[in-house]
Amino acid sequence: MSKSTVQRSDLAAAAKALADILHITPLTKSAALSSLYGRNIYFKWENKFRTGSFKERGAVNFLSHLSKQQRTKGVCAASAGNHALALSYHASNMKVPCHIFMPVTAPLVKVQTTKSFGANVMLQGDTFHQACEHAMQFAKKKGLLFVSPFNHPWIVAGQSTCGTEMLEQCPQMDSLIAPVGGGGLLAGSAMAIKLKRPEVFTLGVQSEWAAQKKWQTPADIAIRPHSIADGIAVKELGEVTAPLIERYVDCMTTVSENEIARAMVQCLEVERAVIEGAAAAALAALPKDLLPDRCQHTVVIISGSNVDMNVLSRLLERDMGDKGRLLKVAVSVPDRPGTLFTTAGVLAKSGANVLQVLHDRSFSKIPGNVDITFQLEVRDVLHREEVLRELKVKGFLVRVLEE
Amino acid sequence: MSKSTVQRSDLAAAAKALADILHITPLTKSAALSSLYGRNIYFKWENKFRTGSFKERGAVNFLSHLSKQQRTKGVCAASAGNHALALSYHASNMKVPCHIFMPVTAPLVKVQTTKSFGANVMLQGDTFHQACEHAMQFAKKKGLLFVSPFNHPWIVAGQSTCGTEMLEQCPQMDSLIAPVGGGGLLAGSAMAIKLKRPEVFTLGVQSEWAAQKKWQTPADIAIRPHSIADGIAVKELGEVTAPLIERYVDCMTTVSENEIARAMVQCLEVERAVIEGAAAAALAALPKDLLPDRCQHTVVIISGSNVDMNVLSRLLERDMGDKGRLLKVAVSVPDRPGTLFTTAGVLAKSGANVLQVLHDRSFSKIPGNVDITFQLEVRDVLHREEVLRELKVKGFLVRVLEE
Repeated sequence: MSKSTVQRSDLAAAAKALADILHITPLTKSAALSSLYGRNIYFKWENKFRTGSFKERGAVNFLSHLSKQQRTKGVCAASAGNHALALSYHASNMKVPCHIFMPVTAPLVKVQTTKSFGANVMLQGDTFHQACEHAMQFAKKKGLLFVSPFNHPWIVAGQSTCGTEMLEQCPQMDSLIAPVGGGGLLAGSAMAIKLKRPEVFTLGVQSEWAAQKKWQTPADIAIRPHSIADGIAVKELGEVTAPLIERYVDCMTTVSENEIARAMVQCLEVERAVIEGAAAAALAALPKDLLPDRCQHTVVIISGSNVDMNVLSRLLERDMGDKGRLLKVAVSVPDRPGTLFTTAGVLAKSGANVLQVLHDRSFSKIPGNVDITFQLEVRDVLHREEVLRELKVKGFLVRVLEE
Repeated sequence: MSKSTVQRSDLAAAAKALADILHITPLTKSAALSSLYGRNIYFKWENKFRTGSFKERGAVNFLSHLSKQQRTKGVCAASAGNHALALSYHASNMKVPCHIFMPVTAPLVKVQTTKSFGANVMLQGDTFHQACEHAMQFAKKKGLLFVSPFNHPWIVAGQSTCGTEMLEQCPQMDSLIAPVGGGGLLAGSAMAIKLKRPEVFTLGVQSEWAAQKKWQTPADIAIRPHSIADGIAVKELGEVTAPLIERYVDCMTTVSENEIARAMVQCLEVERAVIEGAAAAALAALPKDLLPDRCQHTVVIISGSNVDMNVLSRLLERDMGDKGRLLKVAVSVPDRPGTLFTTAGVLAKSGANVLQVLHDRSFSKIPGNVDITFQLEVRDVLHREEVLRELKVKGFLVRVLEE
């Protein structure tokens, strides 16, 4: 199908193939994070492509290599994420038939969006892995090109244009942080950068979730929690990407699900931008202090922003708890009319906002009393203490529950 | 203190005063909204200033007019929001003492951020109105300039630079939508635009909440819900802004709290950007179809992005309900061990995610039965129907509760 590694000349060819089709994504400096980490931090906003991720680079480059016959027959891929969106969007623009296999559990919105770009979407298999097998069989049977999301020189060369752009937009850059799933983005970008500026330090970030997955049986995987960084929840680097990463990447690290979640919320708070877990993984590596001291201009690739709103909603809720803005407290009161009113009065005066109330008769420690459990929203840690003090001053028996 | 209206020459002077201090904020086209509304929709990202809102324009211009003596004495303002952040940040950069009055209920994070910019923050009064009175008294006593958030020609002239920039960044623009609180942003921008291009249609958007507020007594106001567009929850236009809006604005409209909330979520989903309620108000006017048909290039000013994460979290949760992604259902089962297990099994198989469970013995319609109330998260409306069907097929007595 193609030579199995990426040549220097492939990078220039990819840049040329993309030039008229994709715009340059913005690169901005983060004032807040720069002062927080004491070095200049820049973001390369790859989520600003039409379909919300860097995957358009690889897809466009891959499609540009098709022969006339291949263009007529079409392409085939398996993905319920950014690769599907990017490939189907550009295949449609280039009038290349596009077949996408997704697992039957794929969110309706992704199925619909991919269809709206003109792709033929087939729901097959319960897992991504199964959908992938269906896709490869289908491609073979129909004589279509199967488009891997990362493990192909055309894809890697496409992603390399991200590195080339960064060097132009931020000539002072001396370090790069990029997320790693299959490794296409990191391999391509690091290669483009190192060929021109070998002194730039390159750091790749995997999720612990994906790194651990190697040693799990399929049965283990079924009960393990989903990763919030689904874009990089990839078992292993590819045969094409692994040797490039070995050669052009200085350091690899992993980040936990908690670190990724915090980075997503941090990006919302500080940059006012929604980013997906994979992008947040790169950001989450910043506090780990893995860059050499000489690095004073670090570019972090924000790889994409396709995240479900319910995931975001949950992260924000958890974050409120983490920041001491939630208080769960049991107040023991006599079991008679009027006691909820009295308690609620104290809470109202102290400015606490009631989220949930539960009356527990069976487990009250004082006979004849009832435990009213309140879940409260408070302004901050100081206000939290103030609300508790207020309840105690009024003589209520109070037990904090969440610790 | 100054002439009470804004002259054409003030606009050029403001542009000059800001040139070396503020960067040009980005203007981008929204592909998704353009195709949704069938005209070209652009966003002017005023939230991209350091302190997250357009208020820096007015603050910088105001500070640039100070005499040497006034610079030494300092300035004073009341605000728990964007005006406080913008004024204190630039006053500090220009070494002008800055005193900010906030109500005692101001969120700690805003107090701290304003302090971190070097301002002298004083917590006075229970409401913004009371804090404002304290500020004006303090300014008078100490001989400081009181800086209104909108009602001053220097402030309006500062905001006008937003209009000037838009014309340069998007020469094809034929219509403008801007949020209105006190009216500084709209008055300034519309004036700058109309003086050069009178054919550009200008639309101002107020919140219904603020519009209604005029007819309420203070007692009414205490129990009314907060507006999520706190940045434009201003009772009335100012003496400076009202005549300018009368002259340069073609149409004014109002949007409801629900419309604002939906626009905030839409901006998260479509643009992946966090915006505050005031900014969302302008966006919320788009579906109202108030622009003349000839308008094919509409710029919407995204005025700011300072919104609390808990507000965002709540909006997302409500939105899930609106989109049929939440299902509240009571399942009647015999009150004996094992029935929760059986029910949960059906839910697990159908792919519904349990958010809350409540056992209700007292109100079950069948004697000896218990109603288990589940709050479930489903993938979409189709999945919701599928889950209900699955429960009914297994013979469970099911009652949907949220309708």
